[in-house]
Amino acid sequence: MNNFLGIDIGGTNTAFGIVSEEGEMLYSGNVSTKDFSTIDSLAEAIKKHLESNTKESYDSVGIGAPSVSRSSGCIEFAPNLDWGDIVPLKGSFEKVFGEGVIVINDANAAALGEKHFGDAGELKNFSVITLGTGVGLGTVIDGKLMEGTNGLAGELGHLVIRRAGRECNCGNLGCLETYAGAAGIALTAKEKLEFSSGGSALMSLPPSDLTPLEIFNAARKDDPVSLEVIDSVCHDLGYALSSLINLFDIEHIYITGGIANSGNILRRKIEKHLKSYVLPNLRTKISLKISTLNQTGAGILGAVAAIKEYSKEAVS
Amino acid sequence: MNNFLGIDIGGTNTAFGIVSEEGEMLYSGNVSTKDFSTIDSLAEAIKKHLESNTKESYDSVGIGAPSVSRSSGCIEFAPNLDWGDIVPLKGSFEKVFGEGVIVINDANAAALGEKHFGDAGELKNFSVITLGTGVGLGTVIDGKLMEGTNGLAGELGHLVIRRAGRECNCGNLGCLETYAGAAGIALTAKEKLEFSSGGSALMSLPPSDLTPLEIFNAARKDDPVSLEVIDSVCHDLGYALSSLINLFDIEHIYITGGIANSGNILRRKIEKHLKSYVLPNLRTKISLKISTLNQTGAGILGAVAAIKEYSKEAVS
Repeated sequence: MNNFLGIDIGGTNTAFGIVSEEGEMLYSGNVSTKDFSTIDSLAEAIKKHLESNTKESYDSVGIGAPSVSRSSGCIEFAPNLDWGDIVPLKGSFEKVFGEGVIVINDANAAALGEKHFGDAGELKNFSVITLGTGVGLGTVIDGKLMEGTNGLAGELGHLVIRRAGRECNCGNLGCLETYAGAAGIALTAKEKLEFSSGGSALMSLPPSDLTPLEIFNAARKDDPVSLEVIDSVCHDLGYALSSLINLFDIEHIYITGGIANSGNILRRKIEKHLKSYVLPNLRTKISLKISTLNQTGAGILGAVAAIKEYSKEAVS
Repeated sequence: MNNFLGIDIGGTNTAFGIVSEEGEMLYSGNVSTKDFSTIDSLAEAIKKHLESNTKESYDSVGIGAPSVSRSSGCIEFAPNLDWGDIVPLKGSFEKVFGEGVIVINDANAAALGEKHFGDAGELKNFSVITLGTGVGLGTVIDGKLMEGTNGLAGELGHLVIRRAGRECNCGNLGCLETYAGAAGIALTAKEKLEFSSGGSALMSLPPSDLTPLEIFNAARKDDPVSLEVIDSVCHDLGYALSSLINLFDIEHIYITGGIANSGNILRRKIEKHLKSYVLPNLRTKISLKISTLNQTGAGILGAVAAIKEYSKEAVS
């Protein structure tokens, strides 16, 4: 039996785990991404951590990270990582772990994780959207990950949902991410608090604590401003996802990432708005679900799924 | 050598032609779609027309039409055809022409025509947008037509480009088609004429002559209102197409259909607006072209291309 090492590099945290063929997590650990000034030092730290902490072995390594190009093996222009514009992800890890490391964009890893270990199973067409610092999209068409001509498919976060809207880090105006990414959600909350007549639980929070998680928690206690914020975010997400369905007739969409843990309030509200923008004869066919993969392990499983998907290709 | 009969059913006109393996049009004719109260009578009329007018033979039949489902073989809920909600296209033509008729959605036919007979040739990923009464989209991914889970992919015309915008026949508000379809373009012209201070060539036209073609003709003579209308239409088209590129990283887009004949003014203006909405690192990679296929024959060639694409599948 083969075991796999899956690594999930995020802007804040890097999680890794040794996973069996069936997706069982045999060992997992994590380090703080910001502690490492180079990608090489991160690779070495993970290797050392595993040597010190577990006897489980692994035969191959897969890594999910933001803005990864599979063709170059590099992280390219990732706004939330500080290792430079072009980071040789595959090369650096192969120096430490040996040849054959598989690298993949994190949203695509999420889609493959859903295919190999999640609910999507045998579905031929589905999408996974990742909600976190940014907003990502991975799509499987005819059983195969859709990567696009330049390996850049899935820029859901940069779909312009309001012409002349908020300024985005990418340089455009009105990108979905500026409303439905973590900072965008916090900004909407700040704006609504300014115009609120008081009585919101959010007002007692220091500005740095105005996170999507706190806002969702307050919404579950019926905090009116929080409910407004979430309705606005879900409206924008529903609107953006309607493009995906109208253009490509994708029935099954899974939601994953930090705020997906907020569960049904998110799913129901997105679905309501999504249906109002989708062509009527596609409306009844939509299935929007929260990913059943455990959030903390999902990134690791996604990286392992990429090994399963691509290791033959890499060998040949 | 095989010859093919390609039939292109439109709301107004039905064109058909006998085409050689290499795409040479050996014979072509057309009838007025509205003259036929049933799809059976249309099929019989085409058969008789060919028997009376040409000695060219053909071995197989392909038909492109709006709102065709390949899986059912029917035209389903086509707003511009009067033969009922569900029209048994394949069945009716097979009664007249024999088994093995291939049917396909007209925008998908356009994409296959571009692949087999047009400029797209060996491109693995590209889209064709059809501009006419409605706005259609056919997309080839990894060399294969993308049909979607329900065979309904390509509803570019029903992408909502303005939340709470113009009312669409589909029941939603703000669909691209209500701005960039033929009636939408005419409506925009009417609206702009109401607020214009005079001096537009369009004002001398009777309302029924306010067609996209007349508006493009006037724009080429620098008519200010016509130029404003076209800029608005191209802005909306560019905005809608940016979703396609941001979501699926499709580099090559071809424009076809009636107003595509207006050529470069259309292409340049769409491209300008499109680039303003596309993620910056995808911006330089976009190639937007007017289809090089002869407009009157493109629908016929598309139907023939569908035979080439699917006849093996139909036989097996």
